[in-house]
Amino acid sequence: MAHRTTFTVDTRGRGTCDITARVAAALDGAPALDGVAHVFCHHTSASLVLCENADPSVRRDLETYFARLVPDGDPAFEHDAEGDDDMPAHLRTILTQSALLLPVARGRLDLGTWQGVYLWEHRTAPHRRRITVTVLT
Amino acid sequence: MAHRTTFTVDTRGRGTCDITARVAAALDGAPALDGVAHVFCHHTSASLVLCENADPSVRRDLETYFARLVPDGDPAFEHDAEGDDDMPAHLRTILTQSALLLPVARGRLDLGTWQGVYLWEHRTAPHRRRITVTVLT
Amino acid sequence: MAHRTTFTVDTRGRGTCDITARVAAALDGAPALDGVAHVFCHHTSASLVLCENADPSVRRDLETYFARLVPDGDPAFEHDAEGDDDMPAHLRTILTQSALLLPVARGRLDLGTWQGVYLWEHRTAPHRRRITVTVLT
Repeated sequence: MAHRTTFTVDTRGRGTCDITARVAAALDGAPALDGVAHVFCHHTSASLVLCENADPSVRRDLETYFARLVPDGDPAFEHDAEGDDDMPAHLRTILTQSALLLPVARGRLDLGTWQGVYLWEHRTAPHRRRITVTVLT
Repeated sequence: MAHRTTFTVDTRGRGTCDITARVAAALDGAPALDGVAHVFCHHTSASLVLCENADPSVRRDLETYFARLVPDGDPAFEHDAEGDDDMPAHLRTILTQSALLLPVARGRLDLGTWQGVYLWEHRTAPHRRRITVTVLT
Repeated sequence: MAHRTTFTVDTRGRGTCDITARVAAALDGAPALDGVAHVFCHHTSASLVLCENADPSVRRDLETYFARLVPDGDPAFEHDAEGDDDMPAHLRTILTQSALLLPVARGRLDLGTWQGVYLWEHRTAPHRRRITVTVLT
C-alpha cells in the first residue's frame, strides 16, 4: 500500500510558503525505493508550485505578475461572495496546480538544485490548508 | 497491476462538465487501499480542472476569464485550420491540465469539500472525449 | 520498485523539442502492465507540455502567445540577474508543467492520436536539461 501522510499549514494570507522540508519529512517511513511523491492541496483557493528557491525576488515577481494577470475585484466576475479576492483565488489555483508529482530516488526527494515546493495562498486572509503526501514505489 | 478504466464523455461544445461521480465510479473494483487516481484526457483541445463545485457562477467566470485571456480568432495565430477556436483550444488545454492526480484513501477519492473534477471542452462544437482513470496503490 | 530512467536533452535555446520517442523508449525494461509514466523536468526555467503533434504552426503560435503573455524584459520584474528572459522563464514554467503523468497500457504509452510530449526551453540560450521518467504499475 502507498505510504500516506497529511499535514496542515497555517498561512499568513496571500503569498508563498516553502514546504519542501515538510514534504521531504513526509517520506520518512516510506520504503527506500525509487518512485514518486504526490503532494496534494485539498482546496480550490490555494495551490502548489515548484519554484526557484534561491532568490526571494522570484516569489515577489510571481505575486506581481499574477496580481496583474488575474486582477482582484475584476468587474467581469460574478462570483465575489467572499470578496474581491474570491474568484481570482480560484483562477490562480487553476492556472497553477493543486497537485505536484515529484520523483523519489531510493526513498528521498530527487528535485533539481533550484526547485523548491511552495504552498501558494491566494486568499488575502490567513487560512489553514490541508496537504496530503502519498508515496508510490 | 494498476486498476485501469476508460470512459467517454459527449460534450455539448465549450463549457465544463462535472465528471466527479464518473471518476469516483471508476474506482469500483480497485483495492480498498491508500493511493492515487490518475485521470487523463486523451486530447489537445479539452482539459481537466479541479474547480469549486458549489456555486455555478465560478464556472461562468472561468469561461469569461479564459475567453479574455485566450481570445478566439486572435489575428496573431497562424493555426486556424478548424476555425477561430482551434488554436485557443490548444492554448487553454496547455494553460490548464491534461491530467489530474487525486488522492485515494482506503479505495475512495479523497477530495477537499469544495473540489469537483470537471472536463472542460474548449471547442465550440460538441465532441466525444476519452478519459482514462488509473488507480495506483 | 518503480522503473526509473534519466536522460538529458541539449536544447537550442527557446523553443519546443519533441521528446515523445525518448519517453517511449524510457519504458523499455518496465513491466508490460497497465500503469502510468511520470516525466519530470529538474529545472525551473524549462517545462513539459502535451501539445498537438501534427501541425508545426501550433508550436509557433504557442511561442507567439507566451511571448505576449509573459513579456521578456517586463519592467515590473525585479529578478533579472540572468537577463531579460530570466523571470519570464520561471513564470512560463509555472504556467505550464514541470511534470507530466501519462497513461501506460500493457507497458506502452497510451497517448491520444494528436498528443506529443515536448520539452519547452524557456531561456533564450541553449541549456542541458535533465529529465527523469518513472514508470509505476
